[in-house]
Amino acid sequence: MEAYAWTAFLRLALAYTLGLACVAGPALAQAPDPLPSWNDGPSKARILAFVQAVTDKSGKDFVKPDDRVATFDNDGTLWCEQPIYVQLAFMLDQVKAAAPKHPEWKDNPAFKALAARDHAALAKLGHKPVLELLAVANSGMSVAAYDKTIRDWLETARHPRFKRPYTELVYKPMQEVLAYLRANGFKTYIVSGGSVEFMRPWAEKAYGIPPDQVIGTITGVKFQTGRDGVPVLMRTPKIDFVDDGPGKPVGIYRGIGQRPLAAFGNSDGDLQMLQFTAAGSGPRLMLIVHHDDAEREYAYDRKSRIGRLDKALDEANAKGWTVVSMKNDWKKIFPFE
Amino acid sequence: MEAYAWTAFLRLALAYTLGLACVAGPALAQAPDPLPSWNDGPSKARILAFVQAVTDKSGKDFVKPDDRVATFDNDGTLWCEQPIYVQLAFMLDQVKAAAPKHPEWKDNPAFKALAARDHAALAKLGHKPVLELLAVANSGMSVAAYDKTIRDWLETARHPRFKRPYTELVYKPMQEVLAYLRANGFKTYIVSGGSVEFMRPWAEKAYGIPPDQVIGTITGVKFQTGRDGVPVLMRTPKIDFVDDGPGKPVGIYRGIGQRPLAAFGNSDGDLQMLQFTAAGSGPRLMLIVHHDDAEREYAYDRKSRIGRLDKALDEANAKGWTVVSMKNDWKKIFPFE
Repeated sequence: MEAYAWTAFLRLALAYTLGLACVAGPALAQAPDPLPSWNDGPSKARILAFVQAVTDKSGKDFVKPDDRVATFDNDGTLWCEQPIYVQLAFMLDQVKAAAPKHPEWKDNPAFKALAARDHAALAKLGHKPVLELLAVANSGMSVAAYDKTIRDWLETARHPRFKRPYTELVYKPMQEVLAYLRANGFKTYIVSGGSVEFMRPWAEKAYGIPPDQVIGTITGVKFQTGRDGVPVLMRTPKIDFVDDGPGKPVGIYRGIGQRPLAAFGNSDGDLQMLQFTAAGSGPRLMLIVHHDDAEREYAYDRKSRIGRLDKALDEANAKGWTVVSMKNDWKKIFPFE
Repeated sequence: MEAYAWTAFLRLALAYTLGLACVAGPALAQAPDPLPSWNDGPSKARILAFVQAVTDKSGKDFVKPDDRVATFDNDGTLWCEQPIYVQLAFMLDQVKAAAPKHPEWKDNPAFKALAARDHAALAKLGHKPVLELLAVANSGMSVAAYDKTIRDWLETARHPRFKRPYTELVYKPMQEVLAYLRANGFKTYIVSGGSVEFMRPWAEKAYGIPPDQVIGTITGVKFQTGRDGVPVLMRTPKIDFVDDGPGKPVGIYRGIGQRPLAAFGNSDGDLQMLQFTAAGSGPRLMLIVHHDDAEREYAYDRKSRIGRLDKALDEANAKGWTVVSMKNDWKKIFPFE
């Protein structure tokens, strides 16, 4: 054996031994996988590399913990939004529940169409009369009373396909991303088109996100003193702020006051939040959850009425943002699987 | 010496010895005073007793850390608001700075009166034309540009009486209360009539309060994409939300989503926040800082145009809320003393 061959053999033997050691079992010093529900692949690798880069004190991309802000859309990004937004299902149920108090509705075409599930009539009427009904049925009570209604509904309502409480239909791989970011010093926020009061009752348990880190659409609320002298906050039918599309960076500015380092969305309603995140200097993570798994969840994108992903998908592809395939990137979708 | 007299003597000697021990030096087990700038007295005792009650796991008034929310007004509660609100001084300076770009102002009566400091003319004109000028001078730029203007101004501007940067005119005893509450698991928030962007640049350093825990008045902000394709948030002259008076409990609902366990204010603009806090069940702390120290700071209450304290003082007295005398309760007012 020549000297050169001997060196090559030694190198090979060493590599083989080290390889074996890894296959045989994790080394004691090896940390457990923070994203066990993710298949190995480019999406997972990019999340891990991003967090590694911004937390490495000796690296050029280090970001101090105070500036580690991550924002997450909710519907379709953290939980299921099909066949209709969960909050819309709730608000429609509120219309039914409020009907006895509104005898005048029996001649209201929008109410009649809703009650009869007459989709043709609804399409003909357009959004406006339905939104007006929703506004009336979901206002005029104290925020405490509304909060109780939401909690009660979430206890009893079931998803039409999965036959489970909606709060069980959260995405396990995204729960892992949330926990992983927080373990690395990030502050995690919901930035959703849904309204804050609908998410706060369950966001802490489902996502580890406390009430004040839930940014969303704002319904009118008015301070009043009741006849008993006790102050209450009453809901009004007005919508004060729509936290969707171009409203998301505005909501982030109003409620967080810092540009996100990482943003997660799934639809065109998240495009401006992703653009605003990308416009910051240094390393940024822009991630889109692509619903391409009709078997385990739903498959929809460019033509969907709920959670349309069209322009944001083009921009993600053009700019090299991370597009997650639920089918290929996720081992599990829901925690109960 | 009779037996009775002997017992009395022993008791006295014991009390004297214990007293001496305390005077001679703190016992090893004694924690340092968390509120060293407060004189001993009922105000300090009530703050300490409240925190003790809600953090004592074995007590009936225990509150779990997630629900320990404390809200603080800013102007006049955490820093000096006389002779005019600091933000108003800044905004007036912005009118001067913007004048060269607004030649049309030279015939504007409000601008002329402001420039000439003509208080009689200003009083005659009323608030509206001045507010319009302020709105124009403080909008039409990106939020980043405005942020830089605020930071630059805070560096150079000096208080007319104390001849110091405004950010040095924060109240030391209140900084101690903030730190003490946080050390006991509280989340501390500013809830101010001032606008969020004016407080966020310095609130973390001055009070330990991060940007997302600053609740305040909201000025219009619009998402736009510049000619270079870069998204920016532009300021508009519209005021979206006024976080003062009855707006404070609404701001708390929108931005925090929990009822405060403790609230701190100094004027009638804080009354509804204090009422809303008091309306919760269990132990609550409602505290008013009363400006009664003309020598070290300012003395004002029922008749003041800035920070009027009238109805809230009546209610504090009627309901037994804590009213702090700056003169008697505070050893120090400012950190530089």
